[in-house]
Amino acid sequence: MTIESHSQLTDDPAFVLHEGGKLSVRSSVDVNDHEGLSLAYTPGVARVCSGIAENAELVDTYTWRSNLVAVVTDGSAVLGLGDIGPEASLPVMEGKALLFNQFAGINSVPIALSCNEVDEIVETVERMAPSFGGINLEDIAAPRCFEIERQLRERLDIPVFHDDQHGTAIVTVAALRNAVRLTGRGFGELRAVVSGAGAAGIAVTKMLVESGIGDIAVADSKGLIYAGREGLTPVKEEIAQVSNKAGLRGSIEAALAGADVFIGLSAGEVPESVVATMADDSIIFAMANPNPEVHPEVAHRHASVVATGRSDFPNQINNVLAFPGVFRGALDAGATDITEGMKLAAANAIADLVGADLATDYIIPSTFDDRVVPALAAAVAQQARADGVARK
Amino acid sequence: MTIESHSQLTDDPAFVLHEGGKLSVRSSVDVNDHEGLSLAYTPGVARVCSGIAENAELVDTYTWRSNLVAVVTDGSAVLGLGDIGPEASLPVMEGKALLFNQFAGINSVPIALSCNEVDEIVETVERMAPSFGGINLEDIAAPRCFEIERQLRERLDIPVFHDDQHGTAIVTVAALRNAVRLTGRGFGELRAVVSGAGAAGIAVTKMLVESGIGDIAVADSKGLIYAGREGLTPVKEEIAQVSNKAGLRGSIEAALAGADVFIGLSAGEVPESVVATMADDSIIFAMANPNPEVHPEVAHRHASVVATGRSDFPNQINNVLAFPGVFRGALDAGATDITEGMKLAAANAIADLVGADLATDYIIPSTFDDRVVPALAAAVAQQARADGVARK
Repeated sequence: MTIESHSQLTDDPAFVLHEGGKLSVRSSVDVNDHEGLSLAYTPGVARVCSGIAENAELVDTYTWRSNLVAVVTDGSAVLGLGDIGPEASLPVMEGKALLFNQFAGINSVPIALSCNEVDEIVETVERMAPSFGGINLEDIAAPRCFEIERQLRERLDIPVFHDDQHGTAIVTVAALRNAVRLTGRGFGELRAVVSGAGAAGIAVTKMLVESGIGDIAVADSKGLIYAGREGLTPVKEEIAQVSNKAGLRGSIEAALAGADVFIGLSAGEVPESVVATMADDSIIFAMANPNPEVHPEVAHRHASVVATGRSDFPNQINNVLAFPGVFRGALDAGATDITEGMKLAAANAIADLVGADLATDYIIPSTFDDRVVPALAAAVAQQARADGVARK
Repeated sequence: MTIESHSQLTDDPAFVLHEGGKLSVRSSVDVNDHEGLSLAYTPGVARVCSGIAENAELVDTYTWRSNLVAVVTDGSAVLGLGDIGPEASLPVMEGKALLFNQFAGINSVPIALSCNEVDEIVETVERMAPSFGGINLEDIAAPRCFEIERQLRERLDIPVFHDDQHGTAIVTVAALRNAVRLTGRGFGELRAVVSGAGAAGIAVTKMLVESGIGDIAVADSKGLIYAGREGLTPVKEEIAQVSNKAGLRGSIEAALAGADVFIGLSAGEVPESVVATMADDSIIFAMANPNPEVHPEVAHRHASVVATGRSDFPNQINNVLAFPGVFRGALDAGATDITEGMKLAAANAIADLVGADLATDYIIPSTFDDRVVPALAAAVAQQARADGVARK
């Protein structure tokens, strides 16, 4: 897209809406006289500081930190735009912070970093972590995103969550659970194919393996991933070990023949002739945005259940269903980590909301269903306590 | 102070006021349907990101960054409490952010860092700088604060301002300008003595030297600073070169005999017998909090003009008079730096507001005088343009 003129900016409602940014910081106490100032600032504030210095736990009660999430990026994998750098990524990060706020009442601040190395990002986030109650990693390119998250989870005692991985995985698993209910099969009978081995593809695959899927094959730009394929990154090597039991090689088309589930998390288009080779009663989640890998009209000719990432078709698989509630639950419980169990609890909570209303065009709640955040928060907090990572 | 019991926390109004913290982040646009979401977030936001990627200057218009200041600390010199660490410093940083917001409509976020080395702090702030329109350094111990500020000013193209230095210096110089008017002398005739060679003492001394004060001697815990004194830090060495023309050595008492001005920026008490040796019509700014170096009652027995840091005596020298307006002006002008000229313009603007109402108990506007921020902002922005550091 080229910005051709100033009028193009002022005519585009997205630009108009973004003028001045989408966030503001407000003081939750008024300081309009010496007495207010002497409590909120010096000298009164010194007593609160001393209290926290003596008893570190008080920081949760007497600062905003326990309800504050940093949205951290290096701007290296922003939406479908790629590596556009930290400044240009800010509108997305502000949008994410806005959604944390509006959906879950969480304070959130974008932190876009000018460094790209794993060690630099980990070090920087670790150094500023005393200011925050949680870290949402966002739009950081694979494979570095995996190692960054792993190290930060290990080093920090606050929740760290890479939404592009786990948000997508949680909502996908929730939707698939319901799609499977509709088609009358068990997870263990399914053979799935994932297109895309970036942050989302890897996380979805891992979560489906943990959920006991029959077999799952993942394709990246070089074709199917299998044990022993040359030049695999450590993360893809790990995926090769737990997926593709059938040992399929070659292009994604080979794997789709007879497959029960297609999960699209890349931009690659799948031709109708290939879709037609899938098993009866197949399930197609074509989540590329704005152009699904298989157009829903095409998908419906061959599959029983179809979902996309778009809001103008039924069954929108949207991360907004997961991250606000996941963090709400983690913060409510004072969780020191977001465990695999908590992610699965979130997926189940989303799936359960559909309940008896389950239908081929309703396998997942709407983005604006206001039952979602409370249900997820409760399930995630409960699981945090069960997993021994809750501080409250 | 010891926190003895829970009831002590809930009885203390400072603790009560601090429950849940003092800040919140709000979204300035509502996203309650698919259309809103598709403009504030995907897919609409992608057009704004692409626009910024093509033309970096658009980040100022289409994100919140150009009105956002990070309050950065390492928690190493918090109020009079010393090195209490990043978590315990947060209530002060929130307070500072609150004041930025209430006094100047600036969004501000506390960033308390867990690292203490100059290189680490500089590196960390540099990496997160793409997210912010300005950096306010706060409560970082001397002498590292000087080098951190110097390097950040050099590396970043956004305003960097260590308030403990320059905020104090600006307000002190403003007050002294008016005190001098009252006592009918010129700056060039004054001999001043500064107690304390921390962040504030050094910055006040430098600014007074630049303002053409006759002579000024600075004392640290080891006594007066003079050229050649052993073990001086680089910054004190620099001060030794430009101050203490008389070459005084020994304790601060020696320098106070016959001095016109005393500026207290330490906790050390000055006995009345020493105050009595100052020149006629002397000026005493005893700014230690909560216990001024010379109690105002004592000071008034020997001096013509007395100021403190306390709100319960006249002439409160309070940084709140400076930093909101300085940043307001710098951000309004899109300044890439806060120059010495901009600081001096701020000091003059504060002093000028007193105008014809000048009196011994009114040498500086009240903290809550709502003329202060607009006057400073205009003066600072104008000077930014004159100094060639303004982008708008």
